[in-house]
Amino acid sequence: MLVGRVIGNVWATQKAESLTGMRMLLVRPFTAGDVESEEVIVAGDTLGAGIGETVLVAYGRAARTVLGGQDVGWQVAVVGIVDAIHLADGGTFELAGDGTRVPIA
Amino acid sequence: MLVGRVIGNVWATQKAESLTGMRMLLVRPFTAGDVESEEVIVAGDTLGAGIGETVLVAYGRAARTVLGGQDVGWQVAVVGIVDAIHLADGGTFELAGDGTRVPIA
Amino acid sequence: MLVGRVIGNVWATQKAESLTGMRMLLVRPFTAGDVESEEVIVAGDTLGAGIGETVLVAYGRAARTVLGGQDVGWQVAVVGIVDAIHLADGGTFELAGDGTRVPIA
Amino acid sequence: MLVGRVIGNVWATQKAESLTGMRMLLVRPFTAGDVESEEVIVAGDTLGAGIGETVLVAYGRAARTVLGGQDVGWQVAVVGIVDAIHLADGGTFELAGDGTRVPIA
Amino acid sequence: MLVGRVIGNVWATQKAESLTGMRMLLVRPFTAGDVESEEVIVAGDTLGAGIGETVLVAYGRAARTVLGGQDVGWQVAVVGIVDAIHLADGGTFELAGDGTRVPIA
Repeated sequence: MLVGRVIGNVWATQKAESLTGMRMLLVRPFTAGDVESEEVIVAGDTLGAGIGETVLVAYGRAARTVLGGQDVGWQVAVVGIVDAIHLADGGTFELAGDGTRVPIA
Repeated sequence: MLVGRVIGNVWATQKAESLTGMRMLLVRPFTAGDVESEEVIVAGDTLGAGIGETVLVAYGRAARTVLGGQDVGWQVAVVGIVDAIHLADGGTFELAGDGTRVPIA
Repeated sequence: MLVGRVIGNVWATQKAESLTGMRMLLVRPFTAGDVESEEVIVAGDTLGAGIGETVLVAYGRAARTVLGGQDVGWQVAVVGIVDAIHLADGGTFELAGDGTRVPIA
Repeated sequence: MLVGRVIGNVWATQKAESLTGMRMLLVRPFTAGDVESEEVIVAGDTLGAGIGETVLVAYGRAARTVLGGQDVGWQVAVVGIVDAIHLADGGTFELAGDGTRVPIA
Repeated sequence: MLVGRVIGNVWATQKAESLTGMRMLLVRPFTAGDVESEEVIVAGDTLGAGIGETVLVAYGRAARTVLGGQDVGWQVAVVGIVDAIHLADGGTFELAGDGTRVPIA
């Protein structure tokens, strides 16, 4: 239920069977201020999102639906790759890989 | 489960199929103090809420019900557009587009 | 899953059909310290709780059960009106309308 | 999904019917630092936990299972009474009634 | 939905029957900054994770699936043991037992 920036990923060899082959991305939530959140979320990815991209992240049943079904042992998922964010008081921009806002037309 | 102000929106071309055509709004939660939360929530919208409007935002099963069903890949939704907020110690007001409180009769 | 104080309410004419007639209260969570939380929660109310009263607030399936069923488009509910809070190191008290603790016998 | 200390309880006469007879405890979450969280959680208790005891608190479906079934109108529960906490860098201890850590053999 | 470091464990003799034999680990969430979160999460473990190891932690239905079924009275689980974390701006590393980042090839 948030938008964030992919800052890295996680490798785990030993894991629940239903996680086999799942890409696990580290995502840092976008905030209203100029400072990014310190929180880091791990989202399963089936869309091929890359480092530095801005993504939509869903939770719970919605995430499991996108990850492949309700018996998957993970519940956070990338469900969209963001093209642009429009803020009423901040124009329209992309997030650069370092989290800064790059204005777009 | 909160009330907040619509501060912008998000565009994503590449996304889970069940999100096709869904409007995605950025919402900033209303707090008890004079400072708005830095948190930004992305809510699917089927009511036609506009930038600057104050909205009720639901989560989980309740949100999916309003978004169109339990197999939707998103779980936060605008479920109401707020006319007025009444605070016992702050009178009755609308939220202006910049988050300030505008008294109403 | 919390106890809080009713500080106001919210009016919304345009909303999801399942919210018709639902009273929406603003609740501020009780904390262990002397300062109330800045967070504001919107809880549906079927018990008739009034401004200034202290209430128990449930989430998710538990809340929807009390609000009238699993297809309701809201998921936070007042499920009890609190008579007294007892803290081991703070005696037994009610919360006054302004959030201060009023000792009771 | 946390461990905390029971700091008090809550009385509510007027409440959802499914809460009749449920003991409602106030629990303060244990943190990694020396300062306890200001957050207060209300947990239903069927194990007979007392003031000052350290408890395991579950949420959601897991909590409702322990409280008596999925139609209960509360979703946080005491599911264990803690004998000891072992921290790799802090030895093994109990929590005293005031939250301090009492070393045990 | 997070990655964290195992900092200890919890013993509870008196508990809900469905928790019998479950290892309960204390996990401290990994953050984007240099300071670890003060939050402590209790996760059931079926993978044999040890103190100081970095783990993936799931919540809700996903966790219960890994813990043995939907009627288990706990809803947070270790679902993977992390080999390495890669941060775009911080290289690839393991977390040492004290939370510091140890670069790896």
